[in-house]
Amino acid sequence: QHQESKKDTLYKPLIPISKAPLLNNVDIIANMRYAFRNEFDKGTYTGSRFVNEQFRLEIKGKVLDKLYFRFRDRYTRNPETQSVDNLSRSTDLAYLRFDPSEHWKIYAGKLCADWGGVEFDDNPIQIYEYSDIIENSDNFLSGAGVGYLPNHNHEFTFQLLNSRTKTFKELYDSIPGINESKFPFAAVINWRGRLFDGKVTTIWSYSIFKEATHQYMNYFAFGNSLILRNFKLDYDFKLSLENLDRKFLVSNWIPGMKAAQGVTYMSHWLRADVRLSKIVHLTGTGFVDFAYWDGNPDPNKNKKLRTAWGYIPAIEVYPFDKYDLKVFLNMVGRIYRYTGYAQTKFGLVNDDTYRVSVGVITPLLVL
Amino acid sequence: QHQESKKDTLYKPLIPISKAPLLNNVDIIANMRYAFRNEFDKGTYTGSRFVNEQFRLEIKGKVLDKLYFRFRDRYTRNPETQSVDNLSRSTDLAYLRFDPSEHWKIYAGKLCADWGGVEFDDNPIQIYEYSDIIENSDNFLSGAGVGYLPNHNHEFTFQLLNSRTKTFKELYDSIPGINESKFPFAAVINWRGRLFDGKVTTIWSYSIFKEATHQYMNYFAFGNSLILRNFKLDYDFKLSLENLDRKFLVSNWIPGMKAAQGVTYMSHWLRADVRLSKIVHLTGTGFVDFAYWDGNPDPNKNKKLRTAWGYIPAIEVYPFDKYDLKVFLNMVGRIYRYTGYAQTKFGLVNDDTYRVSVGVITPLLVL
Amino acid sequence: QHQESKKDTLYKPLIPISKAPLLNNVDIIANMRYAFRNEFDKGTYTGSRFVNEQFRLEIKGKVLDKLYFRFRDRYTRNPETQSVDNLSRSTDLAYLRFDPSEHWKIYAGKLCADWGGVEFDDNPIQIYEYSDIIENSDNFLSGAGVGYLPNHNHEFTFQLLNSRTKTFKELYDSIPGINESKFPFAAVINWRGRLFDGKVTTIWSYSIFKEATHQYMNYFAFGNSLILRNFKLDYDFKLSLENLDRKFLVSNWIPGMKAAQGVTYMSHWLRADVRLSKIVHLTGTGFVDFAYWDGNPDPNKNKKLRTAWGYIPAIEVYPFDKYDLKVFLNMVGRIYRYTGYAQTKFGLVNDDTYRVSVGVITPLLVL
Repeated sequence: QHQESKKDTLYKPLIPISKAPLLNNVDIIANMRYAFRNEFDKGTYTGSRFVNEQFRLEIKGKVLDKLYFRFRDRYTRNPETQSVDNLSRSTDLAYLRFDPSEHWKIYAGKLCADWGGVEFDDNPIQIYEYSDIIENSDNFLSGAGVGYLPNHNHEFTFQLLNSRTKTFKELYDSIPGINESKFPFAAVINWRGRLFDGKVTTIWSYSIFKEATHQYMNYFAFGNSLILRNFKLDYDFKLSLENLDRKFLVSNWIPGMKAAQGVTYMSHWLRADVRLSKIVHLTGTGFVDFAYWDGNPDPNKNKKLRTAWGYIPAIEVYPFDKYDLKVFLNMVGRIYRYTGYAQTKFGLVNDDTYRVSVGVITPLLVL
Repeated sequence: QHQESKKDTLYKPLIPISKAPLLNNVDIIANMRYAFRNEFDKGTYTGSRFVNEQFRLEIKGKVLDKLYFRFRDRYTRNPETQSVDNLSRSTDLAYLRFDPSEHWKIYAGKLCADWGGVEFDDNPIQIYEYSDIIENSDNFLSGAGVGYLPNHNHEFTFQLLNSRTKTFKELYDSIPGINESKFPFAAVINWRGRLFDGKVTTIWSYSIFKEATHQYMNYFAFGNSLILRNFKLDYDFKLSLENLDRKFLVSNWIPGMKAAQGVTYMSHWLRADVRLSKIVHLTGTGFVDFAYWDGNPDPNKNKKLRTAWGYIPAIEVYPFDKYDLKVFLNMVGRIYRYTGYAQTKFGLVNDDTYRVSVGVITPLLVL
Repeated sequence: QHQESKKDTLYKPLIPISKAPLLNNVDIIANMRYAFRNEFDKGTYTGSRFVNEQFRLEIKGKVLDKLYFRFRDRYTRNPETQSVDNLSRSTDLAYLRFDPSEHWKIYAGKLCADWGGVEFDDNPIQIYEYSDIIENSDNFLSGAGVGYLPNHNHEFTFQLLNSRTKTFKELYDSIPGINESKFPFAAVINWRGRLFDGKVTTIWSYSIFKEATHQYMNYFAFGNSLILRNFKLDYDFKLSLENLDRKFLVSNWIPGMKAAQGVTYMSHWLRADVRLSKIVHLTGTGFVDFAYWDGNPDPNKNKKLRTAWGYIPAIEVYPFDKYDLKVFLNMVGRIYRYTGYAQTKFGLVNDDTYRVSVGVITPLLVL
């Protein structure tokens, strides 16, 4: 019952802060994407259902002059406490940010790795389906970062993070010849640019993840946007070179394989958004992912194993004036093409799926 | 760290909404029922404990003109993400409602199936013990609905929902001769009436749940209330005809049975509430549930397997003027009577239990 | 969709309460301790990582005249519903408190056992490492309590609680000759004193926990603080006499042992806090825990099995004027010394570990 009447520190009683500025500066948001899905495999109807595609509650804002807080938690993921950073897997974000001046930001806590790419940087509710690299990434990591903004057009970020939330053993069990590192870190550098009066923006980054001693993941992401009056075009190029397969796509394709070594994933991602009127947008997303197993010991190998396509045409309607809620009708198509080598060697089978959905997207401000 | 500085949509920046109306229109509520229980079996004292009978945090309210939000999450149920609707099992409600006019409501998200019956429609903290049908129902389902209110005295609702949150395989494993349906839906129609100047109210509904191809659950619920100055009387009749046993009561009684076919549950429920003074109420609840296995292949069967009685006398005291918090003293008795056939054939044993509890109930407004 | 339009009780509609007082009287707090840890074992560097050492969201405050609410939930612990009190293991607190006068408090719900001791009574974010007794205690329990404050200098508390959140069987499986009790309760009495014009404060308590019939835990804790202008000194003495090992330390040291009988834990804990300036504090914590197995059937036994030391020097910096956030640099050292008997008989091995961390502590007021 107590643990409450005491001052939390000895000489500095918590001075009652007027709540009015807090109320105005802090937001509680329900990030939602809800849809009725109709699913098809190779052209055959396979089923329908209502799905809570995204539901993440968020509290964020300025809690004190120059001090910011952000917390976001999902209700679509089992909340298991992670052994490395000791926080629930359902918790995306839990960090403090301090801005000593308008040119610098310092932050620490559970963060989103500041990978570039427009697809990754967008609010998850806005991405109908992620491309392979992002879909299979582990990007909510504990660490610290610093941002430098020389002027309004550029921002440079550096982050140091844990490279994962689970231990090496939990993730990979044991791999002969590979030793766990003592500090499995990730280092991320990022450039956000605003060029040509904001008509072009960039989010470029390079990251290195240490998975084990002498085992690294090098990840490059180059996101670019062209923003015109009634038209926006985004293009990302992403490349992940992985000594140990961290996405587990290639590993899962090879019978009996725990973690493949020497894997490359590459991705192109394009999205166009056409504003027909204040109320109606047409958007189209297309992407292609390539998966390679460079380290395959087979002398007759084809390094390339799969090409995976995605295409997402959508109509988006904003029924409320000046409020960020949209009703959408979309089609999410995927085409999976394995190379002849992958098909004969590992028994992998091509697939074509699509779903047609109608739904609602909103980062709903609830307080 | 980012994913935040970006506008959430391209052309429509989220305009800062003044928080004062949000604060007044949105409520954060802790729905609590807490009790000290003393338990008895066949008249013998078996134990005592403090129990958090209900604890559900809720955020609800009008977030924008004509747009409503409701979210409710339990801390008394393990939060496992469900495979069909992708939301935590602990989350009761997560939906948006739009009222285009005072005559129409449209809503979508994770909902409560709009079954009739006063027992079911009440806030769960107010029901000391549910009757069999409701206790074993799966009623928080994802879907969409529409409400039509021709005038202040009548409301008609139609809902289309997923029929469950788990897959057929997770729920029933496999049953020979029965195939999973492609869209296991539930359709619900409901009438809420206000008659004789509000002295009589009704909540009647009919629902059909598709469990598998050609396998349905038909559920009827007729709730009725008589509301006088210092007296309220509620009566529900409920009937559930289930091709596949969805409540799993009958199935669990039969050794080795996964899911019984051809099951009927029927229930009468009665509650009286007498206001002795502004502070003290006496309430009494009585109910009886019948369970039948119509599809029993045994030629000598008795379709009826069990009659289960419930009786709950209670004294309720409201210590705070005009605030919805009550202290209660109640007795929750249950009488389970199996038919002779069920006793000899399946080895089922009659039981009589009751518990005497003192506790507190409140839908506590915390913000 | 409904369950909402109904009034929650019959005759007492929930009167809309103006939100302004609620906003001022209710706080939402993110209790955080976040650190970058560098770990050493026997002087050898073993690894580094970022850790969310504490993250507990809290809602607390006065919801009505004389009525208080407190809820606190962790994101660093798996949320499993507990079988005895029916609430999630991640939920520390969920209770209501009613103060009939300035001299009396009554409260009920999931509580913190009001054990004395300064270490235990402090906000968990302030304790870098708990001593053995507290670290291995089960202290968030459901129950009820009453507090009596004859004047501003003294408070006396009595609590009656469940003695655990899991059943006897879940905790201990079965122990020959020991029977589960029908009401496994805990009773706690506590005195908080303020002496010599507040220069000395005390938190003393005695508790009895009934684990099974004739099996008790008797726990004594005597916390004392000396508070001067720029110096604070805290000293706790704690003693736990356990018929059945509830901390499971001794039990886990003995191969094949489920729950040792006749166990004693004793602890001394000392903390000094020196204020060098308004911004910088130096703190030092030292503690020692002794573990005894009095009930060891071995005639050649040494009752004492282990002495465990802890030492925690730290520098704490408060960068924000009048706001309770501190940056710390600390060293958390532990020395584990088993007796010769324990080493030879049970194969236990001495250990020395320490970690050097830099981090942030704050009970962050987010609304």
